[in-house]
Amino acid sequence: MALTPFRDVQPLVAPRGIAVVGASPRGNRGSRVLENLARFAYAGPVVVVNPGYDEVLGRPAVPSVRELPDGIDLVVVAVAADRVLDVVREAAERGIRGVLVIGSGFGEGEHGGERGAALAELVAKHDLVLCGPNCYGVLDVAGGVAAYSGRIVDPLQPGNVALVMQSGALTHAVTDSAIGRGLGLSAIVTTGNELSATVSDYLAWYAEDEVTEVIGVFVEGLRDADRFAAACRRARERGKAVVVLAAGRSETGRRAALAHTGAIAGAAAALDGLLASVGAIRVDDLDELRETLLLLSALAGRPGPSAPGVAALSISGGACGLTADMADQVGVALPGFAPETTRALVAGLPDFAAVNNPLDVTGAAAEDPSILAGALRTAADDPAVGVVVFAMNVGLAGPGQEDFYRGQARILAEAARTSTKPVVLVAMTGGALDPGIAEATRAAGVPVLLGIRPALAALRSWLTWPARGGRPSEPPVTARDWPAPTSVAAGADALAALEDAGIPVAPYRLVATPAAAAAAARELGGPVVLKIESPDIAHKTEAGGVRLRVEPASAEAEAAALLAAVARAEPDARIDGILVQAMAEGERLECLVGVTADPQVGRCLSIAPGGVLAELLGPVGSRPVPVSAAEVEELIDGSALGVLLAGYRGGPALDRSALVDAALRFSRLAAALPDLAAAEMNPLLVGERGVLAVDCLLIREDDATGA
Amino acid sequence: MALTPFRDVQPLVAPRGIAVVGASPRGNRGSRVLENLARFAYAGPVVVVNPGYDEVLGRPAVPSVRELPDGIDLVVVAVAADRVLDVVREAAERGIRGVLVIGSGFGEGEHGGERGAALAELVAKHDLVLCGPNCYGVLDVAGGVAAYSGRIVDPLQPGNVALVMQSGALTHAVTDSAIGRGLGLSAIVTTGNELSATVSDYLAWYAEDEVTEVIGVFVEGLRDADRFAAACRRARERGKAVVVLAAGRSETGRRAALAHTGAIAGAAAALDGLLASVGAIRVDDLDELRETLLLLSALAGRPGPSAPGVAALSISGGACGLTADMADQVGVALPGFAPETTRALVAGLPDFAAVNNPLDVTGAAAEDPSILAGALRTAADDPAVGVVVFAMNVGLAGPGQEDFYRGQARILAEAARTSTKPVVLVAMTGGALDPGIAEATRAAGVPVLLGIRPALAALRSWLTWPARGGRPSEPPVTARDWPAPTSVAAGADALAALEDAGIPVAPYRLVATPAAAAAAARELGGPVVLKIESPDIAHKTEAGGVRLRVEPASAEAEAAALLAAVARAEPDARIDGILVQAMAEGERLECLVGVTADPQVGRCLSIAPGGVLAELLGPVGSRPVPVSAAEVEELIDGSALGVLLAGYRGGPALDRSALVDAALRFSRLAAALPDLAAAEMNPLLVGERGVLAVDCLLIREDDATGA
Repeated sequence: MALTPFRDVQPLVAPRGIAVVGASPRGNRGSRVLENLARFAYAGPVVVVNPGYDEVLGRPAVPSVRELPDGIDLVVVAVAADRVLDVVREAAERGIRGVLVIGSGFGEGEHGGERGAALAELVAKHDLVLCGPNCYGVLDVAGGVAAYSGRIVDPLQPGNVALVMQSGALTHAVTDSAIGRGLGLSAIVTTGNELSATVSDYLAWYAEDEVTEVIGVFVEGLRDADRFAAACRRARERGKAVVVLAAGRSETGRRAALAHTGAIAGAAAALDGLLASVGAIRVDDLDELRETLLLLSALAGRPGPSAPGVAALSISGGACGLTADMADQVGVALPGFAPETTRALVAGLPDFAAVNNPLDVTGAAAEDPSILAGALRTAADDPAVGVVVFAMNVGLAGPGQEDFYRGQARILAEAARTSTKPVVLVAMTGGALDPGIAEATRAAGVPVLLGIRPALAALRSWLTWPARGGRPSEPPVTARDWPAPTSVAAGADALAALEDAGIPVAPYRLVATPAAAAAAARELGGPVVLKIESPDIAHKTEAGGVRLRVEPASAEAEAAALLAAVARAEPDARIDGILVQAMAEGERLECLVGVTADPQVGRCLSIAPGGVLAELLGPVGSRPVPVSAAEVEELIDGSALGVLLAGYRGGPALDRSALVDAALRFSRLAAALPDLAAAEMNPLLVGERGVLAVDCLLIREDDATGA
Repeated sequence: MALTPFRDVQPLVAPRGIAVVGASPRGNRGSRVLENLARFAYAGPVVVVNPGYDEVLGRPAVPSVRELPDGIDLVVVAVAADRVLDVVREAAERGIRGVLVIGSGFGEGEHGGERGAALAELVAKHDLVLCGPNCYGVLDVAGGVAAYSGRIVDPLQPGNVALVMQSGALTHAVTDSAIGRGLGLSAIVTTGNELSATVSDYLAWYAEDEVTEVIGVFVEGLRDADRFAAACRRARERGKAVVVLAAGRSETGRRAALAHTGAIAGAAAALDGLLASVGAIRVDDLDELRETLLLLSALAGRPGPSAPGVAALSISGGACGLTADMADQVGVALPGFAPETTRALVAGLPDFAAVNNPLDVTGAAAEDPSILAGALRTAADDPAVGVVVFAMNVGLAGPGQEDFYRGQARILAEAARTSTKPVVLVAMTGGALDPGIAEATRAAGVPVLLGIRPALAALRSWLTWPARGGRPSEPPVTARDWPAPTSVAAGADALAALEDAGIPVAPYRLVATPAAAAAAARELGGPVVLKIESPDIAHKTEAGGVRLRVEPASAEAEAAALLAAVARAEPDARIDGILVQAMAEGERLECLVGVTADPQVGRCLSIAPGGVLAELLGPVGSRPVPVSAAEVEELIDGSALGVLLAGYRGGPALDRSALVDAALRFSRLAAALPDLAAAEMNPLLVGERGVLAVDCLLIREDDATGA
């Protein structure tokens, strides 16, 4: 399964010349594109297509696309939906490859579907690359390419952050309150309905871009998860952080689930697993996205953290308490200070101060500026501390009230200038930022993060990202094809597939008669399970088709009774025989290893405790298949399995490495089977030495729709 | 256990006259109090105590507290820590009851402890009421009482919200970015170290206040949980919402745990349980606190929600997706629209729009204002909708870019004017608010909430608060005193206490000899458990002191073997006999019902699955004892027990009402025992009919320190 190559988006993000079709001096989307191109001083030729004018906003105009001069490789289509197709066709015939369609009307609705299909056909036929429909377009700051019909934050500070977002409106939620705090942008790309170029294509482009160091992504629906993963990996290889906010998580979670795994895989687990496996950073909301981009952008030029801990200081004890709680919730370490740090802090603070992390420098610091300066310096010197944060109010409380906070900001700025570790200002809440504080911190390169929760999420990402994820995914192995002509493989066929994949299976025999069942039970030596083998019986127990703990002596009678019961319950079912299987003995833990096919991400593997625990323990994570051993370990530790395998409640330690090996083999098997909709080993028994698969289900795509 | 009455804080929040000791014209904390009193036009007499001046900032000055005129009942003490005691003593001798101590230095540290103790002694001796130390003081807006040394947001809008907070700095996180959005305040109270008056005392005052309708509370450490609960109940009885942010949650959670219950009760479960039981609203961070106060304040005069659902609209599909996800996470219902609503929306929207909730009104609404206006009106008319929200950007993107969003705000304002249901603007992120949007919405009474997450949390509180909590707590019953002289009651003594409380106990006999054990086993009729009875053996199994599934025939031998094993393992232990107990039979679920003594909140009851599931299933909630039946039901539904009791995985439904009854009885028992540190029934077996307690532990306070 080779990856479709990335579309070359050069005509969209770095065009040599731009035509704007439909721009008029009376003001419309097209003229807004002209205004943006002028504002960002695009250096290439810009020509308007409008039969009513010779010139629009200082740009030459021609009556039709056919009459465009040479050197144009991007056509911005700012006309009504019913005229778009003609314009795109003419552009293609004129030899122009890049198209930006701003308007909507190419998806749902009465005419939208037809128009969309026709547009897609044109794109394919002429090998075009198209941005949109239904988007603002592309701003590439370094190239001055503002083929963009939306409002762009003003002033815009050039910098190292590229935004690649499926929503134009949401770009403002990132830019508008961050630009004033020093967030510099290299690009704003809005991808709209992605009829052609997708988030992945632009991501691949900005992964290679010289200016860009951090990429912020918003997705509502991934159309090409494998290419998205490849683009994220490419960015990571170039040392660029990809920060992803995804909407539609709740919807994904609610989708009908196949097999058991679907019921226990958490909402949005598939996309989270994908992001983890490619080393991208996941954020939970717009505030986290903005603050994370700001922090990573500000610290991009610096070495990574020298230690994973945060020292948090405040003049407010209440802020210290809230910071401690939120750090706990978000997963940021606030290590205790080393003895020499504590001694130095005690010496510098008033005698009523308690020295902890977070550190309340007390109201005395408001009277004596040297107290805060000294405490910041001392905390930064602690070996367990990788970054120092100071929590304070940054808003405008009213006239004449700025001095108090501005003084603290200046002390912070001074501390940052003399420290080798980053110093970060955390505003207690989102809200307005006093310009005086902004100025003092900007000059010293102190990032100002708004809100304790988003700030700590951003810090967590900066502290943990370098070490996280980004392992190359292991390629799928070639597996034998579907073991049976049926579209659900279960019983002996599925067990055989596991054996082929090298997974230990509880010994079994497929037999045709009660007498043969008894012989098989004797051969297997001990109590056995009898299971009806039939492609037509989904629920064997309910059909009387399962007998547990059958001794060899009674196996023949039990097998006969089983066949009779099944014949009564399911008279029309095809019967392929009786599966006789040894019962696994000893202290064993029931596990479930399952693969589901997520509509966006594709096949993902989950691992969870099986049996009675499975659903009670709640959602578990997943990773796209094929998984790596490290990813299986992460899944185990992210579920209750880590605790259970280690020897829970005085039980023996169980064979974790055998479980990891079986999961890896199952993952490769699942990756190799064509049309797989779901796969599950349930239970896989984990013992003190080794594992044993007892049952397995492999479900084809075409069979899944009815489930 | 009668409640200590609330302190009468009248001299602090409604003094008849105020003296400010230490104010000087050169500017200090005292002069800032004078400035604040002038700003809020305090009408009573204000006198400065300062021997160096006849007048300070226009107020008459006297040389000492003794020379203060009559009619002063509050002394603001703004002098150095080592002079505070003298001033307070003189004030008390002058007959003044109210004292505000602004500075710190009365708690930890070398001299702080002594000074604090002396101050507390003075307060008690003269029956003073004191605010602080280490606080800004009190602002009562209606009375113009600004005995407040901190900066106060300017302009401050008078209104119906009282802030009662243990941190002065954090008040700004609430006020500074909310006042501009119409948050009106009745009071700002900062309580500091609470040497005398606590949050509870002020809460009780503002529960009775005529202007106040919503009370915002920040606590770091509750000193009087029972009084706090009573004050919350009083506010609730008056129809006033109490919104609480608590810090120190992580710390609470980490505290050493007694018995098993402590290990499974979630971090901060005790305080959350208290808030739930008194009908207070818990928020998670400062942003949620501010936005919740703002929404409840704005809607305080309106009837409650006509339906529990939210209709969410946006011009941005991305914002719709994020809103849906966050609503899912926060617990806000976005119901599907009724057929007639859907028909009307389809008619009013472009043909490419998809009609869902959240509703993407599409970019076409930017061109045609009637689209948004119609959609808002239609959504508000849906019977399942109690409130309509519109998500948009509200920031300043740059010059000339305001019109777009201001236009939407005006449409929203118009919709609000004609709707009987509240219409709320939700800004996609925290950040600055465009003044034009602020003006348009303020005039129409449209609350503007910043950030999707805090906004949805606020909406959830408004939608659910009226129906939640606020049940009067049931009084503890009188129970017999501790059943044994030992400080840990276990075995027969503890089981007898359960029987006294009316809880069914698995039949048992306490016997002295192996022969008697055999006789008891025969009498109990069936397999029994033998357990050593000893006040000195905490871990019976490890000491060889437990034998399971003993048949009457072998009971004598087993009992003898048990005694011998215990004698070897614990030769010095006092032996009180052998407990012979019937083994419970049938399909039964192991539960754990436990009570822990939280350092702040006091005794709290938790219920959880027992046995192997207990710790795997993670934290459970709690409620202060004695609990009500409705609270036990909430605890059951909040844990996995709800699922397990209903007949999990084809099992029979179990006797939930018997479990509730046993928990109520155990709760009353635990409430009645003096010095209780922890109590636990583990396991309590729940069957299809009835419950059976098998083991119980009751631990005294003095015994808990070593655990």
